[in-house]
Amino acid sequence: MSVEELGRRVRAAARAVAQAPSGTRAGVLRCAADFLEADSGAVLEANRADLDRAEAAGLPGAALDRLALDERRLQSMATGLRAVAALADPVGEIVDGSVRPNGLRVQRVRVPLGVVGIIYENRPNVTSDAAGLCLKSGNAAFLRGSASALASNMAVVKVLRRALAKEGLPEDAVTLLEDTSHEAAVEFMQLRGVLDCLVPRGGRALIASLLEHATVPYVLDGDGNCHVYVDAGANLAMAESIVANAKTQRPGVCNAAETVLVHADIAPDFLPQMARALAGVTLLADARARRYLPGAAAASDEDFATEFLDLTLAVGVVDSLDDAVAHIDRFGSGHSEAIVTEDLRAADRFVREVDAAAVVVNASTRFVDGSELGLGAEVGISTQKLHARGPMGPRELTCVKWVVRGDGHVRT
Amino acid sequence: MSVEELGRRVRAAARAVAQAPSGTRAGVLRCAADFLEADSGAVLEANRADLDRAEAAGLPGAALDRLALDERRLQSMATGLRAVAALADPVGEIVDGSVRPNGLRVQRVRVPLGVVGIIYENRPNVTSDAAGLCLKSGNAAFLRGSASALASNMAVVKVLRRALAKEGLPEDAVTLLEDTSHEAAVEFMQLRGVLDCLVPRGGRALIASLLEHATVPYVLDGDGNCHVYVDAGANLAMAESIVANAKTQRPGVCNAAETVLVHADIAPDFLPQMARALAGVTLLADARARRYLPGAAAASDEDFATEFLDLTLAVGVVDSLDDAVAHIDRFGSGHSEAIVTEDLRAADRFVREVDAAAVVVNASTRFVDGSELGLGAEVGISTQKLHARGPMGPRELTCVKWVVRGDGHVRT
Repeated sequence: MSVEELGRRVRAAARAVAQAPSGTRAGVLRCAADFLEADSGAVLEANRADLDRAEAAGLPGAALDRLALDERRLQSMATGLRAVAALADPVGEIVDGSVRPNGLRVQRVRVPLGVVGIIYENRPNVTSDAAGLCLKSGNAAFLRGSASALASNMAVVKVLRRALAKEGLPEDAVTLLEDTSHEAAVEFMQLRGVLDCLVPRGGRALIASLLEHATVPYVLDGDGNCHVYVDAGANLAMAESIVANAKTQRPGVCNAAETVLVHADIAPDFLPQMARALAGVTLLADARARRYLPGAAAASDEDFATEFLDLTLAVGVVDSLDDAVAHIDRFGSGHSEAIVTEDLRAADRFVREVDAAAVVVNASTRFVDGSELGLGAEVGISTQKLHARGPMGPRELTCVKWVVRGDGHVRT
Repeated sequence: MSVEELGRRVRAAARAVAQAPSGTRAGVLRCAADFLEADSGAVLEANRADLDRAEAAGLPGAALDRLALDERRLQSMATGLRAVAALADPVGEIVDGSVRPNGLRVQRVRVPLGVVGIIYENRPNVTSDAAGLCLKSGNAAFLRGSASALASNMAVVKVLRRALAKEGLPEDAVTLLEDTSHEAAVEFMQLRGVLDCLVPRGGRALIASLLEHATVPYVLDGDGNCHVYVDAGANLAMAESIVANAKTQRPGVCNAAETVLVHADIAPDFLPQMARALAGVTLLADARARRYLPGAAAASDEDFATEFLDLTLAVGVVDSLDDAVAHIDRFGSGHSEAIVTEDLRAADRFVREVDAAAVVVNASTRFVDGSELGLGAEVGISTQKLHARGPMGPRELTCVKWVVRGDGHVRT
C-alpha cells in the first residue's frame, strides 16, 4: 500500500478516535498493556529476529542495546501504557471563554490534533510509548521506525491494533509505515493533509533530513547543550552536588549538563572542589579555568558547542552573570539552563534573561522531563518555541478549536 | 547588508525588547501613532512614488487600491497602533504552576517568541499592524514586504524606528528587508537561529514558496473555504440572514462563506428564498439544488473547492448532517464553518465533528476574526493546528518558558 493510501486510512481512523470517549481510549491502552504481557513471546521473538539481523550487520553494542527487548523492558512498556491511561484527558478542556458585547458566546476548546506522525530511531519501546500518548490525547498515530527494528515494531503495533479492535475503534488508528526506505520517509514528511503534526525522535541526521524535506508541521526535539552556571553567590556545597548530578547521574540524555560556567570570584575555591567531585569525568576547560584545574585539557569553542552525551564536561570562567547569559545565548541549544545561587537578584535575572525551554534555579537540569515536571509522560522535549516548548505530554498533542454560538448574529 | 547580518542585528535588538517593561513597549506604539499622524506627508509622498511605479508597470486596479495610502488610511493605522497599545500584555502571564512531590516548584511563564518574521504582499498598513503586534508581545519584527510597496514600507518603518529610539529601545527591533528579490526571500525563510516564527500574509503563491523553502518555524495563514450548513432544524429566516451576511457583507475576505449546504428536507422552501435574498450573487449549484434554483449554473467539485472571494456562491443539497460534515471534511480549508439550526443535538454534533479553526452556531462566519472574538487585533488567522489556530493576537506571538526552582534538588 502506498504511503499516501496508508495515510488516508489513518486519517479516516483519526476521526473515530477523536470522537471516542476518554474511557474508551484509556481502555485501549490498558488492554494493550495486558496483551503485551500476555503475548510477550511473539514480541520477543520478533525482536530476536531484528537483533540477529543487526548483529550480522555489525551494529555497534550501544545500538544493539537500544534495540533489545526483554521481559523487563516489555513490562516497563506495559507499565508506561497504564500510567498514560491513568493521566488526565486533555481533550474537551475549555481553555477560556467569554461573552462578546454583542452577546456572541465564544469558547476555546481543546481538541485532538488528528493524525500525529512519529519518526524515530531504533528503540522499539517508542512504538508503544508514542502510540499510547497519541491515543490518550485523541489522536491517531502514524509511526515510522527504523529498518533495524521493523519486526519488533510490527509486533508491538499488532498488539496495539488488537487492543483498538477490542475496544471498538478502527485498527488503522495505529499504523506503522513498514516501508523503511529513505524515499518513503521523505514522502511521509510531506503528507500534507494527512499528518497534522510530525514529531521526530532521533539524532542530528534525522533533524537535518526533516528540515530539508518536511512540508508538514512539526515539533523539533533537538539537542540539549545544557549549562550549569555557578554564581558568585552560590552555596558551593550545593553547586558541587548539582553539577555532579547534572553531569553524571545519566550522562547520555538530553537534559544532562555539558558545560559548567563558574563566576571568577569563586572559581579558585569551587573548581578544585568540583574536580574532586567529578572524578572520572574528562574536563575540557578554558584558559582561566585551567589555572585551577591543572589536569584539564584546553576547551575550544567547538567543545563549548558540543552535546557530549558522555562523561565529558566543558568548563569556563566568567566575570559576571551577564557573561554567563551571553555564553549560554551563544552556545546553548535552548533546552535547560541552571543557575546555582543564593542571591535573589541573580536568580531573577537568570530566569528572565536566559532564553531556553526551561530555566532552573538551585536544582539539577536532570529534572527537566515530562514525568519530573508533572506531565506524567512525554512524547519528547521540544527545543523550538512554537506550539510546545520543553517536555511534551498529552496536552501538547492537542490544539484548540474556537466555538462561537449566536442567536442569528450577523456582522454589520 | 546581508540578510543574515540584518538578522543578527534584529536578534540582538529582540533581547532588549523582551526585557523592556510593558509600559515602554506600549509607549513605542503610541509614539509611532503620533509620528504617523504628524509626519503623514513623508509617508504619503513615498506611497505616491510606489503608486506611480505600480501604475507605470500596469498593476491592476485592485492591487493599486491595496497599495494606496491616504490620510484616512494613515489615521486608521495610527488608531490601530493605539488600540494594540491598550490591549493586555501577554508577557509574564503565569500559565500554570505546581509544587512537585519532592518540593520542586514549577511554573510555566509566558515569554516573547523573540524575532517574528512577517512576509507579506502589497498592503503597507500591514507594516505598522504587524510590527505593533510584535512589539506589544515583546518581540522584534523582521519584515519582508513586496517590491511594489518598498518606498511606503521604508517610510512607515522609519516612523516605527524613530518611536523605538524615543523610548530608548534599539531601532533594529523593527527592521525591513529592503532587498525584495526572490533569493533574499528564500534566505529569509531559512534564517534558523534568527527567526523564531515566520508568519506569511499573502496568497497561494507565497504559501507554496514557504512550503518549498522555509526551514524556520512558521504559522500558516491559509485559505478560507468556509461553509454555512442550513440544517433541517433551521429557522429559515435566520438562515437567510446568516447566509446573506456570510456571503455578501464583505466577500473578498477569508471568513466570508463560499459554499452553502442545505438539508434536503428544507431545500424546496429554503433555496428559492435564499436565491431572492442573494440577488446579484452568482449561484453555482449541484444537480439537486438546481431543481429549486432554475437560474443557477452547475457546480463542479472544483467549484466546491474554490475560495471565490467574490459574489459567487456554491450551493449543495445534503441528506443529513453526516453528509454535510463529510462534504466540509473533503472541501473545507479548516478555517470557519457554520451551522444554522434550532436542534440542540445537531448543533452539538456539528461543533464536535467539524474539524476547523472555528465552528459557528447560528451566526455568520464573518465573526471569526481577532477583534470580533476579543483578541483586540490579529496578525493573521491560522488554518494550521500547531501553535495557534484561528485568529492570532498578541498572545499567539508568545511562547512559554518552564521555570523550575529548587533548594539544591538533585535527581536520584
